[in-house]
Amino acid sequence: MPGRPPHSATGGFVTGTAGDQSIAGRFGPRILAWADELAAWSESPDGLTCTYLSDAHRAVAGRLCALMQKAGLTAVIDAVGNVVGRREGTSPGARTLILGSHYDTVRKAGKYDGRFGILAAIAAMDDLHERGQQLPFAVEVIGFAEEEGARFPTAYLGSSAVAGKFDSAVLAKQDAAGTTLEEALRAAGFDPAAIAGLARPPGNLLGYVELHIEQGPVLRNEGLPVGVVDAIAGATRFEVAISGRGGHAGTVPMAKRRDAVAVAAEIILLVERRCSTAAGLVGTVGQVLVPDSAVNAIPGRCELSLDIRAAEDGLRDAAIADIKAEIERIATRRKVGIEVHDMLQTPAVRCAPRLQSALAASVAHCGVPVRRLVSGAGHDAVMFDGITDVGMLFVRCGNDGISHSADETISAEDADLAARVLLDFLTNFTTSAAF
Amino acid sequence: MPGRPPHSATGGFVTGTAGDQSIAGRFGPRILAWADELAAWSESPDGLTCTYLSDAHRAVAGRLCALMQKAGLTAVIDAVGNVVGRREGTSPGARTLILGSHYDTVRKAGKYDGRFGILAAIAAMDDLHERGQQLPFAVEVIGFAEEEGARFPTAYLGSSAVAGKFDSAVLAKQDAAGTTLEEALRAAGFDPAAIAGLARPPGNLLGYVELHIEQGPVLRNEGLPVGVVDAIAGATRFEVAISGRGGHAGTVPMAKRRDAVAVAAEIILLVERRCSTAAGLVGTVGQVLVPDSAVNAIPGRCELSLDIRAAEDGLRDAAIADIKAEIERIATRRKVGIEVHDMLQTPAVRCAPRLQSALAASVAHCGVPVRRLVSGAGHDAVMFDGITDVGMLFVRCGNDGISHSADETISAEDADLAARVLLDFLTNFTTSAAF
Repeated sequence: MPGRPPHSATGGFVTGTAGDQSIAGRFGPRILAWADELAAWSESPDGLTCTYLSDAHRAVAGRLCALMQKAGLTAVIDAVGNVVGRREGTSPGARTLILGSHYDTVRKAGKYDGRFGILAAIAAMDDLHERGQQLPFAVEVIGFAEEEGARFPTAYLGSSAVAGKFDSAVLAKQDAAGTTLEEALRAAGFDPAAIAGLARPPGNLLGYVELHIEQGPVLRNEGLPVGVVDAIAGATRFEVAISGRGGHAGTVPMAKRRDAVAVAAEIILLVERRCSTAAGLVGTVGQVLVPDSAVNAIPGRCELSLDIRAAEDGLRDAAIADIKAEIERIATRRKVGIEVHDMLQTPAVRCAPRLQSALAASVAHCGVPVRRLVSGAGHDAVMFDGITDVGMLFVRCGNDGISHSADETISAEDADLAARVLLDFLTNFTTSAAF
Repeated sequence: MPGRPPHSATGGFVTGTAGDQSIAGRFGPRILAWADELAAWSESPDGLTCTYLSDAHRAVAGRLCALMQKAGLTAVIDAVGNVVGRREGTSPGARTLILGSHYDTVRKAGKYDGRFGILAAIAAMDDLHERGQQLPFAVEVIGFAEEEGARFPTAYLGSSAVAGKFDSAVLAKQDAAGTTLEEALRAAGFDPAAIAGLARPPGNLLGYVELHIEQGPVLRNEGLPVGVVDAIAGATRFEVAISGRGGHAGTVPMAKRRDAVAVAAEIILLVERRCSTAAGLVGTVGQVLVPDSAVNAIPGRCELSLDIRAAEDGLRDAAIADIKAEIERIATRRKVGIEVHDMLQTPAVRCAPRLQSALAASVAHCGVPVRRLVSGAGHDAVMFDGITDVGMLFVRCGNDGISHSADETISAEDADLAARVLLDFLTNFTTSAAF
């Protein structure tokens, strides 16, 4: 790699392989222990659930703040609930590299989705702090408050604020209990009017780098602990609301029905069928709601969520167009109303070549073959597209690649290796990047 | 009709047609006003919801009790919450005719489903009371506390207790909030241990007659205000629980998924298709639940309710067998677990010929052509099958036959005519039946 200094320039850093237990002990067990500790705060007794602004969520924020402070960062909780730890660089007026991921979870989540990226960054910064090693650029480690959209029908709240893409219209969105986002913020002591001010001036940013569990089986199938992300699939999410006609389950002949759930079933299978036609395209109906349902009532209404992703926007857009057209045909044939509302659209994001190269060099330097792969999942990194350069490193997901589940796992060795790659990246980034 | 006395024996009762406004005013507006009054008690501000043992439900019970007392009945609320009004007969040791229906509702219900039968019976008994007309047999008007199964996963609680078919195992069933039926009873001041004692000795019963809104379009399509039920369709209900594998919506290729909601969609369309193959057969998936769902998670679990009905048990049983077999094939093909639990099974019920004939005679006597029809819906009457003779009279359902909906309607004229048919039936039953 042209211009990259020899590894001895990183200040006493010891290299090793993923299987080296003495090295695994340096960061891996610590990161996993922190993840276990954070997972003890949950809204539900059966599994980890930590949605935006819940008591569990506020407790995790407090703990992350303390961990950052122990790692030598000046840490604060900002107006949207992000935990922001900052360390200045040695060069006056140096730009800032952001290392981020999110600390909210889906319901019955794994312990590593989002949090791993924050904790690995804290571990790396703590190491620099303990060894008194300065970096010429500023670093912010940010635990984003909300990415999953598990409580409110929105997502990327934390990273959108920092990236200057916060849409104040989401303040009116309601959770399942009818609480608006604005009400929830105020109840937790936050000032919604201050969120717009969290945006970082793009000119002050050096880049955004996120470590994340892969949440899929690619690295596991290839026996690799980490991989460099080259693109993040774009995602489009819809709310689909079907208005048929309710009725008594015993008295309305089948031919006279306008059953909203039967319509939903057709749409679910349509999405599955259409999204199975191309590699790299996926479509999911994750939520199905039948309001005021009863075992003996024909459903008059049904609401679905729809999530369609592809690494190529054209592939996704074609699938969406086909699905929307077929939904119209279903509505006509079954004499029901179907409304399709756009919820979220993120285009596919290419990771910056210079960050891909720098991360790949650090992976190679840690003795691991470099694998580049696409992220099927969206991440906070998506919000920084167009604002600053974006890079991502994936760590292997155990257990057949399962995530969004209590069965999600990361090994201590893999966690350690990922943190060491990040540390190598940070210390070498001093000379390979213009800041 | 052999042995039936001339109508002048009914004691000053004035006959008329459904369109006779002076007659419509006698019972119709009063019954509708009572139904409006009861509908003001609701658990939800947007529509009528009155589920078992809610505050609204207890308020309605109190009001029904007062209405019965004003109609000359000795009224009490029994151990399961039924409102029971009794009037003794003139013959010592006379057996009892029960006039019943239920006062609980589905969610966002109509005002007449169940309640019409109670209120029409109160109106008829009030008329006898005002005119001081005795009947040789005892009459009990019963407002059953629970029939719909809207709160707990059971149904016919009130009528099953009176018919001696109460199953104490249901006391352990839970509502959506996790409250058991037993806890709900105790919290409302009832003694669950006393429910078994509500069973009426079958030898003391003369019959069971229920008036009910048709909840379908047959009478409306034929321009008839009332009809005599000759059979009640049997119903079988199942809970279907699908266990697939959860995962992240962006990272698991379509071919690797075991999506519980996609499996549910296949089952929903299978039920619709199979139950469309025979007239008189209906199948409904009324409830769909995706636990811990998220827009960006592949559902690992989905739970469905399944309700299948037919007036002929053989027709229904064949459909169930086919659907269960196909569900097994789906489970194998999609590599998921599917459990099908029986929730409720009621065989088709034939109404007693002598009660059908007596009701038909009264319909004819009120100047209306006699139409016999099947009830697609189950009713409390089902519980009395095998205990005593069962008869039912349907009143026309306006608005295209819609029920289980705020759009359910009955006209004042039809309500009046149905009450007059009941009064005619009661006064003539004195000589046409052995009691």
